[in-house]
Amino acid sequence: MSTLHMPPAHPFDTSGLLDLGEDDTLHEECGIFGVVGVQDASTFVALGLHALQHRGQEAGGIVAHDPEQGFNNARRFGYVRDNFTSQKIMETLPGPLSIGHVRYSTSGSKGQTAIRDVQPFFGEFSMGGAAIAHNGNITNANTLRRELIERGSIFQSSSDSECIIHLMARSMGRSIPDRMEEALRKVEGAFSVVAMTRTKLIGVRDPLGVRPLVLGKIGDGWALSSETCALDIIGAEFVREIEPGEMVVINTDGVQSHFPFRRQKPRFCIFEHVYFSRPDSILGGRSVYETREAIGRELAKESPVEADLVCPVPDSGTPAAIGFSLESGIPYAMGIIRNQYMGRTFIEPTEQIRNMGVRLKLNVNRALIKGKRVILVDDSVVRGTTSRKIKEMILDAGAKEVHFRIASPPTAWPCFYGVDTPQREKLLAATMSEDEMREHLAVDSLKFISLDGLYRAVGEAQGRNPTCPQYCDACFSGEYPVKPADMVEQGFQMKPAAE
Amino acid sequence: MSTLHMPPAHPFDTSGLLDLGEDDTLHEECGIFGVVGVQDASTFVALGLHALQHRGQEAGGIVAHDPEQGFNNARRFGYVRDNFTSQKIMETLPGPLSIGHVRYSTSGSKGQTAIRDVQPFFGEFSMGGAAIAHNGNITNANTLRRELIERGSIFQSSSDSECIIHLMARSMGRSIPDRMEEALRKVEGAFSVVAMTRTKLIGVRDPLGVRPLVLGKIGDGWALSSETCALDIIGAEFVREIEPGEMVVINTDGVQSHFPFRRQKPRFCIFEHVYFSRPDSILGGRSVYETREAIGRELAKESPVEADLVCPVPDSGTPAAIGFSLESGIPYAMGIIRNQYMGRTFIEPTEQIRNMGVRLKLNVNRALIKGKRVILVDDSVVRGTTSRKIKEMILDAGAKEVHFRIASPPTAWPCFYGVDTPQREKLLAATMSEDEMREHLAVDSLKFISLDGLYRAVGEAQGRNPTCPQYCDACFSGEYPVKPADMVEQGFQMKPAAE
Amino acid sequence: MSTLHMPPAHPFDTSGLLDLGEDDTLHEECGIFGVVGVQDASTFVALGLHALQHRGQEAGGIVAHDPEQGFNNARRFGYVRDNFTSQKIMETLPGPLSIGHVRYSTSGSKGQTAIRDVQPFFGEFSMGGAAIAHNGNITNANTLRRELIERGSIFQSSSDSECIIHLMARSMGRSIPDRMEEALRKVEGAFSVVAMTRTKLIGVRDPLGVRPLVLGKIGDGWALSSETCALDIIGAEFVREIEPGEMVVINTDGVQSHFPFRRQKPRFCIFEHVYFSRPDSILGGRSVYETREAIGRELAKESPVEADLVCPVPDSGTPAAIGFSLESGIPYAMGIIRNQYMGRTFIEPTEQIRNMGVRLKLNVNRALIKGKRVILVDDSVVRGTTSRKIKEMILDAGAKEVHFRIASPPTAWPCFYGVDTPQREKLLAATMSEDEMREHLAVDSLKFISLDGLYRAVGEAQGRNPTCPQYCDACFSGEYPVKPADMVEQGFQMKPAAE
Amino acid sequence: MSTLHMPPAHPFDTSGLLDLGEDDTLHEECGIFGVVGVQDASTFVALGLHALQHRGQEAGGIVAHDPEQGFNNARRFGYVRDNFTSQKIMETLPGPLSIGHVRYSTSGSKGQTAIRDVQPFFGEFSMGGAAIAHNGNITNANTLRRELIERGSIFQSSSDSECIIHLMARSMGRSIPDRMEEALRKVEGAFSVVAMTRTKLIGVRDPLGVRPLVLGKIGDGWALSSETCALDIIGAEFVREIEPGEMVVINTDGVQSHFPFRRQKPRFCIFEHVYFSRPDSILGGRSVYETREAIGRELAKESPVEADLVCPVPDSGTPAAIGFSLESGIPYAMGIIRNQYMGRTFIEPTEQIRNMGVRLKLNVNRALIKGKRVILVDDSVVRGTTSRKIKEMILDAGAKEVHFRIASPPTAWPCFYGVDTPQREKLLAATMSEDEMREHLAVDSLKFISLDGLYRAVGEAQGRNPTCPQYCDACFSGEYPVKPADMVEQGFQMKPAAE
Repeated sequence: MSTLHMPPAHPFDTSGLLDLGEDDTLHEECGIFGVVGVQDASTFVALGLHALQHRGQEAGGIVAHDPEQGFNNARRFGYVRDNFTSQKIMETLPGPLSIGHVRYSTSGSKGQTAIRDVQPFFGEFSMGGAAIAHNGNITNANTLRRELIERGSIFQSSSDSECIIHLMARSMGRSIPDRMEEALRKVEGAFSVVAMTRTKLIGVRDPLGVRPLVLGKIGDGWALSSETCALDIIGAEFVREIEPGEMVVINTDGVQSHFPFRRQKPRFCIFEHVYFSRPDSILGGRSVYETREAIGRELAKESPVEADLVCPVPDSGTPAAIGFSLESGIPYAMGIIRNQYMGRTFIEPTEQIRNMGVRLKLNVNRALIKGKRVILVDDSVVRGTTSRKIKEMILDAGAKEVHFRIASPPTAWPCFYGVDTPQREKLLAATMSEDEMREHLAVDSLKFISLDGLYRAVGEAQGRNPTCPQYCDACFSGEYPVKPADMVEQGFQMKPAAE
Repeated sequence: MSTLHMPPAHPFDTSGLLDLGEDDTLHEECGIFGVVGVQDASTFVALGLHALQHRGQEAGGIVAHDPEQGFNNARRFGYVRDNFTSQKIMETLPGPLSIGHVRYSTSGSKGQTAIRDVQPFFGEFSMGGAAIAHNGNITNANTLRRELIERGSIFQSSSDSECIIHLMARSMGRSIPDRMEEALRKVEGAFSVVAMTRTKLIGVRDPLGVRPLVLGKIGDGWALSSETCALDIIGAEFVREIEPGEMVVINTDGVQSHFPFRRQKPRFCIFEHVYFSRPDSILGGRSVYETREAIGRELAKESPVEADLVCPVPDSGTPAAIGFSLESGIPYAMGIIRNQYMGRTFIEPTEQIRNMGVRLKLNVNRALIKGKRVILVDDSVVRGTTSRKIKEMILDAGAKEVHFRIASPPTAWPCFYGVDTPQREKLLAATMSEDEMREHLAVDSLKFISLDGLYRAVGEAQGRNPTCPQYCDACFSGEYPVKPADMVEQGFQMKPAAE
Repeated sequence: MSTLHMPPAHPFDTSGLLDLGEDDTLHEECGIFGVVGVQDASTFVALGLHALQHRGQEAGGIVAHDPEQGFNNARRFGYVRDNFTSQKIMETLPGPLSIGHVRYSTSGSKGQTAIRDVQPFFGEFSMGGAAIAHNGNITNANTLRRELIERGSIFQSSSDSECIIHLMARSMGRSIPDRMEEALRKVEGAFSVVAMTRTKLIGVRDPLGVRPLVLGKIGDGWALSSETCALDIIGAEFVREIEPGEMVVINTDGVQSHFPFRRQKPRFCIFEHVYFSRPDSILGGRSVYETREAIGRELAKESPVEADLVCPVPDSGTPAAIGFSLESGIPYAMGIIRNQYMGRTFIEPTEQIRNMGVRLKLNVNRALIKGKRVILVDDSVVRGTTSRKIKEMILDAGAKEVHFRIASPPTAWPCFYGVDTPQREKLLAATMSEDEMREHLAVDSLKFISLDGLYRAVGEAQGRNPTCPQYCDACFSGEYPVKPADMVEQGFQMKPAAE
Repeated sequence: MSTLHMPPAHPFDTSGLLDLGEDDTLHEECGIFGVVGVQDASTFVALGLHALQHRGQEAGGIVAHDPEQGFNNARRFGYVRDNFTSQKIMETLPGPLSIGHVRYSTSGSKGQTAIRDVQPFFGEFSMGGAAIAHNGNITNANTLRRELIERGSIFQSSSDSECIIHLMARSMGRSIPDRMEEALRKVEGAFSVVAMTRTKLIGVRDPLGVRPLVLGKIGDGWALSSETCALDIIGAEFVREIEPGEMVVINTDGVQSHFPFRRQKPRFCIFEHVYFSRPDSILGGRSVYETREAIGRELAKESPVEADLVCPVPDSGTPAAIGFSLESGIPYAMGIIRNQYMGRTFIEPTEQIRNMGVRLKLNVNRALIKGKRVILVDDSVVRGTTSRKIKEMILDAGAKEVHFRIASPPTAWPCFYGVDTPQREKLLAATMSEDEMREHLAVDSLKFISLDGLYRAVGEAQGRNPTCPQYCDACFSGEYPVKPADMVEQGFQMKPAAE
C-alpha cells in the first residue's frame, strides 16, 4: 500500500506529526492481521498489530463485525498500544471476526497522511459490507484510479489500495470473494491482502508472493498475519505460509483455498530477511534471526578485517554483528547504546531538538570505544546520512579505526512494491561506487555483502540464479519483476534490459 | 439533510455526546454558507456559520480552495466558535473561495453521528473537485442510494445528501454545474444547496423553495447564506433571496442565474417564520421578529384572557409574548429566567444531573410570580414534556393561574423536509384534541393560534388558501407538498387525501 | 478574591485562553457554594455553581469529603457544565460534605491565571484538613503575604485568598473554626467565605456584608450559596441571608451562629442589585428583576424622552428597559439580538475574528430599527467602547435618533472589594462629564440614573443617606468603606475626604 | 525522593495510568539535571532528562529562569520526548538557567501520583525564589513533616522532598545556598539535589554519596546530571563526579565547592552498577557496560554450566550475558526478542490485555531455541514472577534445559534510599533459599553472583570489606548505612546487628 504521488486532490485532516529527519532507513509500509472464530476478535487483532508495529508506526485501524451490532471500526494515528488497548475503545469493536492494519508514515515530502488514508477500507455492496487491509503496492493504481473516476467512482483517500474496493463495487460477481478475485486480477504489483465480510475472513497473496502472509490456528478459530511473531503473541499455532497466488476463504467451517491468478515463479522480497521482518519471525522454516546471523558470518568470510571489537548499529545490525563476531572471533560489544524511550517522531519540535538527529536516539559508549579498532555492522546504507553521523560519534569518542560492514548489497534502486524508499538520486549507492562511498563516509574500510553471499545466507547454496532470480532483489539489482507502470509514466528510468 | 433511518451499515466513529433529554423542540437540521471573491474566504464562512449556529449545533465543516494549495477542509463536532476561530485551524483553509455547513445532531434514538456524516461532502471528478453543502431532506434518498450501490458507488456516510455527489459522479455532464443540475433533477424533496468548484460558487433552491437561501454582496465578492443575519455579521449587503427553483453560478465575473427545474408554485416552510429563523433575519421584506410579534398580537385577539403578567418561555417565545402584551395591555415580564451558560448537551452526565432536565436551563422568578395570574407564551408544543415541567415550576412558585398561549397551530405531523421531528405518535397534538391537551398539561387555559391567524400574521391578509396553500404547513395540516417516498415505503401513513 | 498585582513570582501553567477584547463590563469575580448532610454532596455543589456561573466563568473547583476516602478535589478551567457533570469526574468526589467555587478570569493585562489559583484552597493542619472558598477581596493581602513569607510560609498561588489558609496554619487555635476566626480578624476588605472541615460546613460574611451569602435547607441537610437562584436549582428552601459579620458552623446537628467581629454598619454592594446578581435571585425580600424594573421606571421618570421604541442592550439591560417602557408607555422591542452561541473567550483567534468584537455577539434587527427613534437601555457604562459600537450599529441600520439611558450612575471609581474593574483612568466617567460622554458617544441624548434615584429603586424611599450611606457605592461615589491599603501603597489616589 | 506511605491527606488529581502489572524489577525513582550559562537552557535540560528517562518514566518537570520573565515551569505526566520537545512548550521556558526532574511512578498499591507531586518544587522566599529537584529518599520525612505542619507550614504534595523547601523557608539563613545547607543538615537519608535560584545552579550530594551526581562543562556554561550519558547528549564534557557530602554553587563566574556536612565514609549504591545506570554512563572511570560485562565474566567463573547458547533477558541482562559468553566460550544469541514499541503502562486496558503481561513485551525466538540447552542471564530476581514466565516461554518453545544466571546477589531487603522496592515479604529471596528458589522457578539450575564476586567486578580486587563495606549493598546484605527512621516507626524489622 502506498499513497499516490499525485498532487493532493482531496482535502483532508493531517496528523500533525513531523518526522525528526532521521529518514535514513527503508520502511516497510504495512502490517496486516485478521482473526475469525474467537470471542472479542478485535483484541486479538490489536495484539497481533502490536507485534507487527515494526512494519508501520504511523497509524492503525481495526474493523470488527458482530452479528447484532454489524460492522464497527476505529482508526487512529499513533501506536497500537496507545490506541487499541483500553476497555473503552475495544468494547466498541465487538464480535468474532476482525481485521486490522498498521501503516508507515510517508514523510512530509510526499504530502501528509489523513485519517481517511488509514486502512482497513470499507465498502457497502448490494450483498453486504466488506473491509480490506492491504500490504504492498499497486503499480498501476494511477491508471485504475483515473478510469474509475471517469466512470463515476468517488475516492475518499489518496491511497492506491482504495482502487481494490472500487473495483469490487463495480464487479458483477455474486459474492464478495468472487468480486475480490475479479478486482485483484485487474491489479498489478505486490499485494498481500486480509479482508472480511460479515462471516468470512479472506487472505490473498499476489502471484509473485512479494509480501509475506501466514496462516495460524487459535482454538477453534483462525488467524492471518504478515509474520509469525504476531501469531506467537496471541498464542496461535503457526500452520503454514499462504502460497504466492493463493486465496484462502475462512469461516467457522474451515479454510478453503484456491489459486485464481496465472501461476508465476515466486519472487519473495529478500529485504524481508535483511531488515523488515522481526528476528523472531519464521521465514522458510528458519528464524529471521538465524538468517541474519548467517549474513554476518558470510560477511566476515567475504570481508575480514583485524580489529578489537565488533559493534552493531542498534538494533537492526545486532544479529549480523553477532554472526560476524562468531565467525571472526573478534569480541562482540555494545559500542553504541540506544535510548529506549525514543519514538519515531516529535510533534513540532524546536529547531535545536530537530538538529539533534541521531544523537537523540544513539550514544557512543565512550569509555569502551576509546583507543579501539572498531568494526561497525549495519543492515544497510540508504542515504548514508546516519552512517556518517555514527562514524563521527565513534571517532569523536576516540576510536582508533572504524570499519563498516553492511549486511546487504548496495541499495541502488527504489522499491515500488510496498516499501518507502527515497527517490533514486537520493540513494548513496545509486550515485557512488563502493570506493567513493568509503571516501564519502571517511571510514577506514567499507564493505557490503555480495548479492551471491546474501543469497547463500538466506539458504540458496548456489547463490543467485541470474536468469531467474529466486527472490525480488530489485533494490539491489534494478531488475523489477513487475513493471512499475505508474512510475514509468511519471518519468522513472528503468535499468536497460541489456545491462 | 438527514441521516437514513436504516440500520447503520457503515462502521463509524461517533461523537460521544449525549443529549440531556430535553428534546422537546423541533430542530432545523442545517445552515449553509458560502463566499467567493474575498481574501481568507474561510474566515467569512466561519463567521457566517457562527451566525447560523441556531440552525445546527452538533457539528460544522468548512471547505476552502486556494489556487496553489487546492482544496482543504476541516470538520468538527461542536460549536463554530470553538472549532473555527483559531489562527491554527483557519490558516489550513486558505483561498478566496469557501463553503461551510452546520448540522443539528439527530438524537440517540436514530443512531449516532459520525464525523464522516459532517458536510460539506467532497468529490473528485474527471474535470476537478467539487464540494457541496445541503440544507433540506431528500425524500427518495433510500431508493437512490440502493440504485447507486447496485451500480458500484461506495457510500462513505449515512447521509441522504451524499446521493447528490454520487449522482454527479455518474453524470455525463461536461461541467460541474451541468452535473449538479442533472443530479438535482433526480432528487425529490427539499433542498437548498451551496456548492463550490475550484473557481465557482453555486447556489440552488428546490422548485418549491422550502428552505431559505439568500444572496449577499461583500466588496467585490459574493456570499450565499441560509439567512440574512449571517450576511450582517460579515458586513455583506443583502441583495435578494434565491428564487425557488433557481440555480446561481457565481465567479469573479458575477452571478449567472437560470431555472433548471419544472416550475411549481412555491411552498416556503411557514415554521421558519414561527421558530427556525433568527428574529433579526429578514424574510419577505420584514424582520422575523416583527412577524413573531404580529403572531403574538393575533393570538391575543383570537384568545384573550384576564391576567396580571404575560411571560415568555425563553427565548423563543419572547417576541410573541411582547406582541401579546402590546395587544392585550397586560404587562410583559420575565417570569422565567434562562441560564446563559447552558449548552445543549452533556457528556455522560450523572443520573442525578440527567434527571434535572429543564431546571438546568430555566428557573422561575419566584418573588415575581407569587400570587399572580400568568399568561405563558411559547412558540410551539411538540411532545408537551417541557410545557408540563414549566407549568409545574410556575405553580410551585405560587402562581394563582397559568394560561398557555402557543404561537403556532398544533404540531400534529412530522416534517420530512429537513427538520428533526419526533415520530408522529410522540407528537402531543397527533393524539389529543386541544381540550385533552389542556387537561393533560393541567393548566387553566391552553390556546393555539389558528392556521388562518398564522397566515395573516405572516402577511397573507386573506389567510390560508385551502386549495393551494401559500406555504408548506405539513406539520400542522398533514398536507405534504412532496410525497415522502422513503417514509411511505417504511410504513408512514399519510393523511387520506379526502380528509 | 483577586490575584495580587505583583510581578508573577510563582512559575505556573496558564489556561491559554485569550479574551476577545470585549472587556467593557464589570465582572463579579466569584461565586461560592457549599452543602452538608446530603448524599453525593458534590453533585449539588456542581448544580449550585452552574446556577452561579454568571459570577465567574473562567474556572471552577470542588472539594468533597467522604469519611472513608477523605478529601478529594477537582479544579478545571471552563464552565461547570463542561467539567463537573460527567459520571467519571463526579464519582471522584464522594461524600456528604462539599464546597465549590467559580472564578472570573482576570484579563491578560494582570497576568494569566494558573490552575493553582483556582479555589477552593486546601490546607492540612495538625487537627485535620480544611478547604476554603472566598468571594471578595482582601485589601491588605500584600502586607500579609510579605509577613507570612518572612516567617517561612510557602505560597502556592498568586491569590490573595491563600493568605487566609496560611494565617489559619499559624494560628494557635484548637479547632479549625477557631483558627478561621483568628485568621479572618487579621484580614481587611470584603469577604464571604464558605469553608469545610471533615465534618463541618462553615460560612462567614465580613462585618460590612459587602458580598452576599445565603442559607438554605435541603432535606436534612443545609446549603450556603452566594445567591438564592442556586438554592432553587437544587430544590433547597431559602432560609435567610447570613448576616454581615456572622459566622455559621453547620453539621448534622444544625446551625450554630455567632458574631466574631467588631460590629459595624452594613454596606452591601449596591451593584449586586444593578448588575451582578441574577434577576431571579432574591435580595432584601424582592427579586432582583423587580428592582431592576424599578430602576427603569425611576430612570423614565428622571429622564423622559420622546421615541418610537425602547430597546434593551441584551441581556443585562432587559429588566430596566421593560421598566422604562412600562413607565413611559413607549413600546418595548428587541432591537438588538444576541447570539446565543457566543462564549466569553476564543482560543488564539485570527486577527480578523479578534477585530469583530461585539458583532460576534450582537446584531441589530435592521428591518425593525430603520427610521425609528430608539431609546437604548443599558445597565452601566464602563469604558464606553461597547456603547459606542452599539450606537454605530444602530445608526448604520438606519435609526433616526439614538437615546441612551443607563440604569446606574456614572462608574467613576474602581472596586477593590472583589470586582474586576479597569484602572481608574480607563473608566469613561472618571475623565468626562455626562455632556462630554454624550458627545464622545455621539448620541442624541445620554442620561444616567441619579444616585438617589438608584437608592429609591432599591427600596430606600428617602434616597441615599450622605453621612452614612446604606450601601457600598464606592464605584459611583469614590467613598470606600474600607481603605484599600495595598492599592494605596501601590499609588492609588483616593478621593480627598473633603470632597 | 519518594511519596509518604501515609493515608493521602491531600486531595489531588491523579494521572489515570495503570501499570500493567509487570512490576517485577526495581525502579530508580528519579533523574535530575541542571544547566547554567547557555541560551535556551531548558532545551538542554529537556535533552538531558530524555537521556535520563530510564531513571523515571512517569512524569517530568522543568523550571527555567529568565531575567525578564522570571521563573516559569512546566510539569507533565509521560515521557520527556512527548512533553518537552515542542516549540510551543519550550518557548514558555526561556532563560539561561534551568533544572529538571524525571520521576518513576510508584505503583497503584501505594496510592496514585498527582501532578503536584511532580518536581522540581518551587518556593518563594523573602530573598527570592528557588526551585529544587531531588533524587534519593529522606528517611526522617514523616517526622519532619509532622513538626513543620505543627509550626504552620502548608504542604502541597505528598512527597518527602517537599520538606526541604519548607525547612529552607523557615531557615534564618541570609542566602538561598545558606538556607539549603541548613535544611539539608536536618535531613536524613540519601539525596542528590540539583537546585536553582535566579542566578545560581546548586548541586549537593549527601555525605554517603548514595545517589550519583556529576559535573559537566558546556561552552561557557555548566551542567549537573545524575549520569554522564546525559552530558553526552548535549555535547557537554564530563568534568568530574560531585563528591559525597559536597555542595557546589555555580554561576557564570564558575564553580564554588564546599563540604557542609560531617564527613563520613562513602557508600555509593552498588545497584547503580548492576542495573540503574545506563550502560554508556561512566562510574569510577569505567563504563557501566564494562562493569556489567565483568559481572558476567565473574558469574561464568563462579557458576559455569555446559550449554548451547547464552541468552540475555533483554535488555538489562545483555552486557552480563555477553561477558558470560566471552568467559565461557558458549555462543551468545538473542533467544528472547523485545518488542520495541512497548511502553511501560497502558491506560485502562481490557482484562485480556492486562493478563498478557510479559508476552506483550517479550517473545521467544522459537526456531532458534528449540532443542537447545539455554543459559539465561538476568540482572536480578525481585518477586520472581517474570523469571517464571520467561522460563515457561522458553520451555514452551522447546528448549532442552534452562539455566538461570543472575548478575546480582539475592535481593532480600528493601531499599529506603530512593529505589522503589516491594515490601520485604514480596521479595523472593527474603523468604526462600537459593535452592528453594530454583525449585520454585523449576529451572535446571539457578545461580546468583556472590557478594564478593560483585565487589570484584566493580573493581574491588579484595572483594567486600565486611567491617566497613565500600558500597551501600543493603538490598543484598540488610546492612543499612542510615537508619530508616520513618520505616522503623511504621514497623519495619531491621536485621539484628549481631547477624
